[in-house]
Amino acid sequence: MQRILSTQLVAHEHETVTVAGWIHRLRMLKTVSFLILRDAEGLCQVVVSERQARELAEESVVEIVATVTPSEQAPSGVELTSPSIRVLSAVDVPLPFETHRPALSASLPTQLDHAALSLRHPARRRALRVAAAASAGFRTALEAQRFVEIHTPKIVGSSTESGADVFRIDYFGRPGYLAQSPQFYKQLMVGVFERVFEVGPVFRAEPSDTARHLAQYTSLDAEMGFVTDHRDVMATLTRTLDVMMATVAERARVETPKVPSEIPSVSFAEALRIAGAPAGEGDMTPAYERAVGEWAVREHGSEFVYVTGYPMRKRPFYTHPDPADPAYSNGFDLLFRGLEIVTGGQRLHRYEDYVAALTAAGEPLEPYAGYLDGFRYGMPPHGGWAIGLERLVARLLGVANVREVTAFPRDLHRIAP
Amino acid sequence: MQRILSTQLVAHEHETVTVAGWIHRLRMLKTVSFLILRDAEGLCQVVVSERQARELAEESVVEIVATVTPSEQAPSGVELTSPSIRVLSAVDVPLPFETHRPALSASLPTQLDHAALSLRHPARRRALRVAAAASAGFRTALEAQRFVEIHTPKIVGSSTESGADVFRIDYFGRPGYLAQSPQFYKQLMVGVFERVFEVGPVFRAEPSDTARHLAQYTSLDAEMGFVTDHRDVMATLTRTLDVMMATVAERARVETPKVPSEIPSVSFAEALRIAGAPAGEGDMTPAYERAVGEWAVREHGSEFVYVTGYPMRKRPFYTHPDPADPAYSNGFDLLFRGLEIVTGGQRLHRYEDYVAALTAAGEPLEPYAGYLDGFRYGMPPHGGWAIGLERLVARLLGVANVREVTAFPRDLHRIAP
Repeated sequence: MQRILSTQLVAHEHETVTVAGWIHRLRMLKTVSFLILRDAEGLCQVVVSERQARELAEESVVEIVATVTPSEQAPSGVELTSPSIRVLSAVDVPLPFETHRPALSASLPTQLDHAALSLRHPARRRALRVAAAASAGFRTALEAQRFVEIHTPKIVGSSTESGADVFRIDYFGRPGYLAQSPQFYKQLMVGVFERVFEVGPVFRAEPSDTARHLAQYTSLDAEMGFVTDHRDVMATLTRTLDVMMATVAERARVETPKVPSEIPSVSFAEALRIAGAPAGEGDMTPAYERAVGEWAVREHGSEFVYVTGYPMRKRPFYTHPDPADPAYSNGFDLLFRGLEIVTGGQRLHRYEDYVAALTAAGEPLEPYAGYLDGFRYGMPPHGGWAIGLERLVARLLGVANVREVTAFPRDLHRIAP
Repeated sequence: MQRILSTQLVAHEHETVTVAGWIHRLRMLKTVSFLILRDAEGLCQVVVSERQARELAEESVVEIVATVTPSEQAPSGVELTSPSIRVLSAVDVPLPFETHRPALSASLPTQLDHAALSLRHPARRRALRVAAAASAGFRTALEAQRFVEIHTPKIVGSSTESGADVFRIDYFGRPGYLAQSPQFYKQLMVGVFERVFEVGPVFRAEPSDTARHLAQYTSLDAEMGFVTDHRDVMATLTRTLDVMMATVAERARVETPKVPSEIPSVSFAEALRIAGAPAGEGDMTPAYERAVGEWAVREHGSEFVYVTGYPMRKRPFYTHPDPADPAYSNGFDLLFRGLEIVTGGQRLHRYEDYVAALTAAGEPLEPYAGYLDGFRYGMPPHGGWAIGLERLVARLLGVANVREVTAFPRDLHRIAP
């Protein structure tokens, strides 16, 4: 007999069907006992005998043959009755916590220690479905705009991008490093396909133990050639975000904010003024970001806001300066609900500009040889961005800690499971 | 003026247009000079003066305003005439090799040293477009079959899967390892979503320097619950491959082999007989795989063939044995044109079976604690597979070395660019 899913039951009233899944909950009331079965698509209620209920355990995997019976009490309008139950995989130890409560009551470390169990909770599943939908929307949007997907090396030979927060690896007896971003590679691939994207892991040996930092996260990277400046990049990002939000709404059934066709944009100097920062402040703090986020809602009804023109000294060496004021950059951040979730900008594209920028930074050229090669052999004006997937999902769902929206997070203290 | 792409020129006859791209080739003939411009979509021919040609260099990036003129000699039926040319990025060094010949003439190491240039060659671009299309088809097929995309850790705390070929990393002062596959995590996620997939990098510290091994490659992983045995997994893989091949044919305009609705399948013992292997041979060799591949074409007209029921001692501990003959497994390989490109099978799903399997293998349980947790808390019968993307693409295009279809390959000797 073909197994059907919980969501299909209503179409099979009065029929005998096979369902299968996990025992989400066992409820023994005075006169009746219920087994709530959980499968990939949802829950269904099964009327069981007290004896059946006593012999079963929550989270055991079962296959049930039963009759679909209309029921006004059952949440879906039907329940399963007269079940015969076959246990496929029995749980015979106490669970460290229950997964059927509205919220997981265990501490976050306990949840993460037992990720294989805590991820089964509906709230955690929803977060991962949102992440999957956001990635899918990202790819759909970019493929429609002629971007080509790439896969770039995660092991690199020099810790060039930012020496400090990098993981060292033993690469066949030589030193290697985990890539902190696909930055250099996606730029080189602009020379091949003009427009590229990658969805992949990036690694930061972040010594900071905060609610928004992970040692590995998923970066949604894009890079595009033949731009006039960073505003072309921002326009493409805005269109991409719009498709991402629509895909999340459709696939994960989560309410998503409207993405304005033109997201409000403020310069770094304006952002500081809005935040009431002291004159001469050199960078945005989380508090300033929150203030600018509130301003964007208040003044423009937008939960998204661009901050452009960060000081060059705060941006990496490959950042293109603002031609009108070279102390400032053609770089931008996108704040979503007051948190930076995207960094992007226009990059340098001429070999001689790279040599000058690295030399000014006191950097030797040799570790960058393979990277500079692409610029020596002709590269168009280009720019791109990186979206932090976990931060986006956390902000979308109003979750305070990125660890709650990550399947098996890695941080300063955690390398398992 | 809006830039248009080379492929759009035919729709603009007699108009003045702007194009932009790389100088693919400069040809100075006796009476006329040509500039062949390459952009993301193709090539176009520009009639230039000898003086213009002399001032330009191949691979420089240019923007050209010119008239679209019908031409019987031009490959696309039109050429650009009376161009004014603006150089966006000039090449002023000799190129290490030419990219406009039918084949790259430089040695493979030289090509890889200058990957930013060699990847611009049409054959290399085509391979990467095939890889992108295969990944896209993989996701499309699986999303349509209720699989959910996941992102799993690439840094793991124990080198459990196969101790030898693993990269060690310094994880905040503790030992860590790069994940050789998402195997454990995708299995745990079956407990969450029933069906999951991941497209991501995997890492093998392969000491072997062959044409089919890389230290990092892209693995197309899937795992599904509530299967009867490995044959359900093979059926899903077959449907997925069919969509992948159709997507490659459509998006990358490459001829792809037909995927039979039922791919021929032979047992390990039959495969050895077909290959003429001596009785008692314990494993398939590349030569045997080729022989079985030829047999499948000859007898079934199929370029794909499954080999099932490998001996248990040749498969990892999580492999489900064949209930009818527990010395053999419910594992399979898929050979494509005589090369193994997929490994898969049914896995153990009961906690006690894992304990028994690990104990029999003389392995301690402790390093597997986070993994075993999922099985302790209820897991359905399940199985899955992993496709090696680069191998698939190389086989599809008839390319001998996987390095030729990888953007920036990593191997025993190479960590840059």
